[in-house]
Amino acid sequence: MTTIAFIGLGIMGGPMAAHLVAAGHDVVGHNLSRPAVDRLVAAGGRAATGTADAVRDAEVVITMVPDSPDVEALVPDVYPNVKPGTLHIDCSTIRPDVARRVAAAGAEHGVHVVDAPVSGGEAGAVEATLSIMVGGDAADVEAARPYLDVVGGTVVHVGPAGAGQTVKAANQLIVAGNIQLVAEALVFLEAHGVDTGAAVEVLAGGLAGSTVLDRKAAGMRARTFAPGFRIDLHHKDLGIVTAAAREAGVAIPLGAHVAQLVASLRAQGHGGLDHSALLLQVESLSGRNSS
Amino acid sequence: MTTIAFIGLGIMGGPMAAHLVAAGHDVVGHNLSRPAVDRLVAAGGRAATGTADAVRDAEVVITMVPDSPDVEALVPDVYPNVKPGTLHIDCSTIRPDVARRVAAAGAEHGVHVVDAPVSGGEAGAVEATLSIMVGGDAADVEAARPYLDVVGGTVVHVGPAGAGQTVKAANQLIVAGNIQLVAEALVFLEAHGVDTGAAVEVLAGGLAGSTVLDRKAAGMRARTFAPGFRIDLHHKDLGIVTAAAREAGVAIPLGAHVAQLVASLRAQGHGGLDHSALLLQVESLSGRNSS
Amino acid sequence: MTTIAFIGLGIMGGPMAAHLVAAGHDVVGHNLSRPAVDRLVAAGGRAATGTADAVRDAEVVITMVPDSPDVEALVPDVYPNVKPGTLHIDCSTIRPDVARRVAAAGAEHGVHVVDAPVSGGEAGAVEATLSIMVGGDAADVEAARPYLDVVGGTVVHVGPAGAGQTVKAANQLIVAGNIQLVAEALVFLEAHGVDTGAAVEVLAGGLAGSTVLDRKAAGMRARTFAPGFRIDLHHKDLGIVTAAAREAGVAIPLGAHVAQLVASLRAQGHGGLDHSALLLQVESLSGRNSS
Amino acid sequence: MTTIAFIGLGIMGGPMAAHLVAAGHDVVGHNLSRPAVDRLVAAGGRAATGTADAVRDAEVVITMVPDSPDVEALVPDVYPNVKPGTLHIDCSTIRPDVARRVAAAGAEHGVHVVDAPVSGGEAGAVEATLSIMVGGDAADVEAARPYLDVVGGTVVHVGPAGAGQTVKAANQLIVAGNIQLVAEALVFLEAHGVDTGAAVEVLAGGLAGSTVLDRKAAGMRARTFAPGFRIDLHHKDLGIVTAAAREAGVAIPLGAHVAQLVASLRAQGHGGLDHSALLLQVESLSGRNSS
Repeated sequence: MTTIAFIGLGIMGGPMAAHLVAAGHDVVGHNLSRPAVDRLVAAGGRAATGTADAVRDAEVVITMVPDSPDVEALVPDVYPNVKPGTLHIDCSTIRPDVARRVAAAGAEHGVHVVDAPVSGGEAGAVEATLSIMVGGDAADVEAARPYLDVVGGTVVHVGPAGAGQTVKAANQLIVAGNIQLVAEALVFLEAHGVDTGAAVEVLAGGLAGSTVLDRKAAGMRARTFAPGFRIDLHHKDLGIVTAAAREAGVAIPLGAHVAQLVASLRAQGHGGLDHSALLLQVESLSGRNSS
Repeated sequence: MTTIAFIGLGIMGGPMAAHLVAAGHDVVGHNLSRPAVDRLVAAGGRAATGTADAVRDAEVVITMVPDSPDVEALVPDVYPNVKPGTLHIDCSTIRPDVARRVAAAGAEHGVHVVDAPVSGGEAGAVEATLSIMVGGDAADVEAARPYLDVVGGTVVHVGPAGAGQTVKAANQLIVAGNIQLVAEALVFLEAHGVDTGAAVEVLAGGLAGSTVLDRKAAGMRARTFAPGFRIDLHHKDLGIVTAAAREAGVAIPLGAHVAQLVASLRAQGHGGLDHSALLLQVESLSGRNSS
Repeated sequence: MTTIAFIGLGIMGGPMAAHLVAAGHDVVGHNLSRPAVDRLVAAGGRAATGTADAVRDAEVVITMVPDSPDVEALVPDVYPNVKPGTLHIDCSTIRPDVARRVAAAGAEHGVHVVDAPVSGGEAGAVEATLSIMVGGDAADVEAARPYLDVVGGTVVHVGPAGAGQTVKAANQLIVAGNIQLVAEALVFLEAHGVDTGAAVEVLAGGLAGSTVLDRKAAGMRARTFAPGFRIDLHHKDLGIVTAAAREAGVAIPLGAHVAQLVASLRAQGHGGLDHSALLLQVESLSGRNSS
Repeated sequence: MTTIAFIGLGIMGGPMAAHLVAAGHDVVGHNLSRPAVDRLVAAGGRAATGTADAVRDAEVVITMVPDSPDVEALVPDVYPNVKPGTLHIDCSTIRPDVARRVAAAGAEHGVHVVDAPVSGGEAGAVEATLSIMVGGDAADVEAARPYLDVVGGTVVHVGPAGAGQTVKAANQLIVAGNIQLVAEALVFLEAHGVDTGAAVEVLAGGLAGSTVLDRKAAGMRARTFAPGFRIDLHHKDLGIVTAAAREAGVAIPLGAHVAQLVASLRAQGHGGLDHSALLLQVESLSGRNSS
């Protein structure tokens, strides 16, 4: 049993913390809104009065917050208040350069930091089947692995500090693109009068097959866009992708294109919908409004 | 045992015909170049002297040729020379409107026509795991199913004549887009110094997972682009996609974009490479030439 | 004074025919709807009972109709009914390959054909300041020049039969792109609270200056989108552009992109608006609806 | 006669400073590399030993440096060393938010700051025909106008501090897009065998006409890409555009697309060429390499 501080108990962090409790760990949680903390307590965890309180006696600190500034804001609350030798696993999706800066800040306090962003969405968090891409020193990643294995199905060390975030950026590029492609295909098929249920079945069995098709196509066909993973967050992530590609001088023609489409969908007021709502925009651009 | 005429014994048709031989059928093959016919004979099939000769005594005619004009060119050699009641399964990837026209021409000669384009590439043909999207009358599709099950892993009736081709078009849109996205992600990761082997493993486990990632990423990482499925053919298919989307007034922003990228790769003389060679163009556009 | 048959007296053809009357020619007009013919008669021209009647005594035939099939449909009414040696100036915007075919058909009847599509829109037709790009034999182009000079401000021989249409295609690519760019810039400036009147003045004076900015920006700022040149027609023209680029293996990334945007605007029911209405779509994609 | 400190005497600043000398002003210049200062002295100006020295006795300070950080770096050298009431005209192209921050910093020292980025390129600077978009308080803009009129042909007050930069961003969006469109059109026309000289003449006379066509097409046809305005700088500017559009939630589909194309051209090692070199990339993507 390890004492784990878990900061950020939202749609992703909540189920992850609960799995760690179920695995026998002593999980002390903190979250900006109280109901999420209550859910952790109901699941067998403990409530902290704040970040500093949560991390004080922890052997492991896990953070799962929305954006780069949120992680940076945690640094002064976490690192001066933990014991040297503490392991910090940041599961947030943030900019690779910020991840490297946070790791360096941790090192100054004797904290071992790994960046471990996740993919798989709410379903992956609930089912503990997340894909986790981990950046950091090999020894630290190995130390983190037992905890990550509790919440993920695939846990891979992909490189030094920040590399986890870089791979997560690539992940978000592919996911947004795949959703848009499936959206275009579905509207195309509907416009031609094809039964999309049968079509999805056969598409899934060939080279067009994808996890997006498996998990998202049914909801897209039914026009149910409850998140899941919000457009607002994917928009944030695509900002990371395009900035990192620009910095490296890498051409991402489709990536930049879908970033525009996600930004447009958000500008139209749909930031709170699941990212599969890209279909709504394809419909609208095709003059086929479903509502 | 059924007598099957098989016209078009290329990279896809060859293995498909061989599977039908292995399943106990009497397969009479014809192909423009002779070595492909010899391979069929070596596998236990029979050689015809031409299309008319091949189809004369067939109960089932299967055609697998490159493009819409090739199928249309077969019509005067096939339909006047077959017995009424013959089943014609066209596995070529062609324009949906041409498929409908061919089906009507067959009906005039008492031939039952289904359009049954396939997905899965050479590997799918060799392993008999093709996805097959079938358009036509329900009874004709059921009559075709025993033969399609021999060469495919997923066989789905998606609608009336031409619907198979429409779904295939959607398939090609998704596949080209997915390949391009994976290409952008790989070059992005390489530019950031990430080990792409580990990255692909973790990407495949999350929402970014896809058959393209499973089957194509290793070759892309190794820069091996032997077809597989040639850029020339994917270019042809994307011409079908963009025309059919334009006709239906459907917006396919990423689809149209990747069609341009495929056309560019072809214009640069790479039409004979596997479609995964889209990676070469991303590299080139990023100033990172691997050769 | 030349006897000129003028077929197609619409938004463009009407003012052009009137200019030819004003220049002293005997203009015999035909149009599918009668009010346009009445306007020609009011301007001093004559009404024909049909195409064959109009062309019978003409020395010059000018056609100005919407699309490739319209021109092809005129061929059997015009060429068998004209005197050998007649000059046919086709001012319609059609496919270059159709223009070449029509020229060949004319030659068989001893008719001298030039393709002479125009740019400049309704304003250019009314003010006789059209740009005219002319394809055909040099002698025929010189024979056509006196009539074209009456309706245009810039008349240039750009190559053999069909070359006029090819240049017109390039023109439509540039125009659609420029309008879209100005639309993006205007919405961008409005969103940042800049006075777009002052901005347009300064933009027009620098490297961003263009005829689109001069003629279209004011209407775009005021949201007045009465044609002018309809989205429906520009959509048709961009179909010619993308097909001709595909045929030649030329990459037109922005051209293909704006073709999608025009197609989307049309699919949303705005085909009857002026092409400057691309601004409406930029607004809509930005969540800034003006209506 | 006004004493003017001119910081940044490069390809743009050099000719601008010389025009101010020719107009009778006392111009004290500073530049990181010495030859540019020598040219100013040869033209009748004076050399300063550094920024602080240059600005000490100036009534007007004009800055023309490459990027946002360069302007920010000048602040501690300029504002503490000038007399209160000095007018600072920043002609650099920088981020609107940085322009607003610099204006606020100036105000703290009693300096009147206007942002006055220019368009028109080297030719515009040499010929004193620049378009200048000015942001700031009306009185300050009027105070700046006599000096701006010396170097520009069109000087327009477009709004408060930062507005000049916002309009310049819009300018750069349009210019990059127009160049790319002209490049696509030229390669398209060449591929179809049209004489592009005649084509440009007629395109320039219609709705496709633009300053880009007037000033850049001849060089593009001849494949002469000496700057002019370097791809490196346009790439920087498009970073400003895309960031400002993202911040405002404005869709710029073509803008984002051409930003990718400029980034690609730069990544391929062509950052030092004139932005009209976008044609090289269109050629390369079309398999038509001119070199």
